[in-house]
Formats: sequence, C-alpha cells, structure tokens
Amino acid sequence: MVGPEIERLIQLLARLPGLGPRSARRAALLLMKRRDGLLVPLSEAMALAAEAVRTCSVCGNLDTRDPCTVCADPSRDRSTICVVEDAGDLWALERSRAFTGLYHVLGGTLSALQGIGPDDLTIAALVDRARNPEVREVILALNATVDGQTTAHVVTDRLAQADVAISRLAHGVPVGGELDYLDDGTLTAALKARRPL
Amino acid sequence: MVGPEIERLIQLLARLPGLGPRSARRAALLLMKRRDGLLVPLSEAMALAAEAVRTCSVCGNLDTRDPCTVCADPSRDRSTICVVEDAGDLWALERSRAFTGLYHVLGGTLSALQGIGPDDLTIAALVDRARNPEVREVILALNATVDGQTTAHVVTDRLAQADVAISRLAHGVPVGGELDYLDDGTLTAALKARRPL
Repeated sequence: MVGPEIERLIQLLARLPGLGPRSARRAALLLMKRRDGLLVPLSEAMALAAEAVRTCSVCGNLDTRDPCTVCADPSRDRSTICVVEDAGDLWALERSRAFTGLYHVLGGTLSALQGIGPDDLTIAALVDRARNPEVREVILALNATVDGQTTAHVVTDRLAQADVAISRLAHGVPVGGELDYLDDGTLTAALKARRPL
Repeated sequence: MVGPEIERLIQLLARLPGLGPRSARRAALLLMKRRDGLLVPLSEAMALAAEAVRTCSVCGNLDTRDPCTVCADPSRDRSTICVVEDAGDLWALERSRAFTGLYHVLGGTLSALQGIGPDDLTIAALVDRARNPEVREVILALNATVDGQTTAHVVTDRLAQADVAISRLAHGVPVGGELDYLDDGTLTAALKARRPL
C-alpha cells in the first residue's frame, strides 16, 4: 500500500510509548503531510539528540552534556543526593520542582528473576559520592514495589560505610486520591504515618 | 533540566497525534535509553522518508514513488475511482481491503469558513480522469459531515461533464454498533435505506 520507507517509519513509530500500530500510521501520515514543518525538523532533532546524548558520569542522568544539566547547575544543593531507579524518575521529580539537590540514577532495581545483582547497578559509585563530606543526606526515591524496596534495603546497608542520614519518600494517600479506590497497603501506611494537625 | 536538543526533541514529538507533552517526554526518554536500537534507526527512517515522500501526480496519495504504489499496481481495477478527502482516508479504505480500484485524493473539503473553494481542491483533475473512457464509476467516499456532503454535491455536479456512474458510501448502523448509542440522523438514514432480507 505504501513504499517500504514509509512502512519502516510506521513500524519504528509504533515502538514509541503511547503509540500503537494504528496511531503510528496516523503519525506517519501527519509527518508526510507536514514534511517541512514537522518531518524534517523532527528527523534533524533526533539525529542531533542521537549524536549528543550521553550518560552523566556523575549521576547517571541522560542528557546532552556530561556532567548533566542538573549536576552542572551551581545553584543546586550539593548536600543532598536523591537516589532514583532511572532517568525517567529523575525527570518526574524535576517536574515537581520540589527537590533542589543532586540525583543518583541506579540504572534499575535488584531483581533475582532478571539476574540483576548489586554490581549491575551504580551502588558503589553512590557510596563513593556519599563519602564526600559535603553530602549530608541521601533520599531513597525508589518505586514502592517489591524490587524497589529490596533495592532500598541493600542501598541502605551499603551506605552504612558513609556518614550520611538516609531517608525515603513518604508512603500515603496520593494528593487528589479517593480513599475508596486505594489498596489496603497504602491505607495502612497512611494510617501508620498519620501526622498531627 | 535537560539540554536544549532534548527539549526541542520533546516539543516536536508532542506534536505527533496521540502524544501529549507528558507522553512525548516518556517517548524522548525511551529514545535516549535505546539510542542504537530505536533513536538512530527512527532518525534515519525519517530522513529517508523526508527525502523520498512525494504526492502522487495521478491520484494525490502520499508515497515514496510517483505514481504511487496503488496507481502503479497493474492488478488494480482501473474502471472505478474512489474519491476521498485526504490520504488518511485512502489508507483507511486500503486497510479494509474492500476496494480494488483507484483513488482520487481531493486534498480537503470545500469550506466557506476556511475559504476553501473548488479551485483549491483537485476537482478539475478528477473530472479529467473521469473522462477517460476506461473509467465507468466514481465512488464518493467523503466524510459524512456538512462540509463533506457539500463537497460531494459540487463534485457530482462537475462530474456531469463525464460519462460515469456516481455513487456514494452507504449510511447506516456501524458494524458492531449499538442502536442505543446512535444519533437520530444515523438511525433515520439506516431506516430509510433498509434492505430486504
């Protein structure tokens, strides 16, 4: 129905999160219709990104510079390191604008099933960073899943070698959430961690 | 938060149908994580498509060749031309595999509001094609909107110059549709056009 170049473009677009085979076809069509306004600029932006993207040697963030924009920002608070699973979590926290310290991207969670051990993550590098006397607190912002919490335990153990306070994100009712729709674990955690008014 | 190259990539991705600012960010992240597996191939596929894409000089379809894959296919029935608004509609009909003739892409619909008159569409080219004695039927597959139906009337008028049968798509209950959820216009059309069993 269409040339092989377009078929390949559709197949690759369909691998983006949020696009299925059908919406990839729609996207390809729009790109072809708006060749000069969208297809060419997007193709160039991707080529540029592919060339420039690198993993930050300090925190493991993905960016076009090394050290990354966050690590290189002189206004960030260098006494606090927030540990996240991957760069997506870092981006989510940055969007909230609630954290002004530095990050450390572990690169995943420990997983017996997937054969991911402590040496596959950047835990050793984190301990090195935490030993810097400038660092006073490490916040574990790992997913509240079994693997995430296992990883948090191991990271806590390793950080005993460094003289830092260790904290984790609070568990509780999501802002805007309705109690009726919450699972028992979350409700239990929210009750236990109740705060005086 | 991220370098300007990535910000630009996110902004451009967000203009694809089906992707908003948030999912564009997720898509950009996945692209950066899978640089060699996805970002580079997709960037190359886009560059290739941008270079190769052209409008078919016969039917107005978007493809990498001219005449397009449909027009160039010797197995298509050259006696029937299906008139559609844009290439997306052509693709939708092709997906159904229900039509084996040729197409004609009008490039939009007449619209007094948007100042689109008959000369902005490829109606004249359609009449030329319809005059070919090989062509016996023109099927109007325009959207069942006010603009689509106005356009259908004008196209029908112009096609009086050519010796062809003119038909339009049937209106009725969509297959899999429930009567309870249908609008009055559709139900009226389905009743009027009822078929003997």
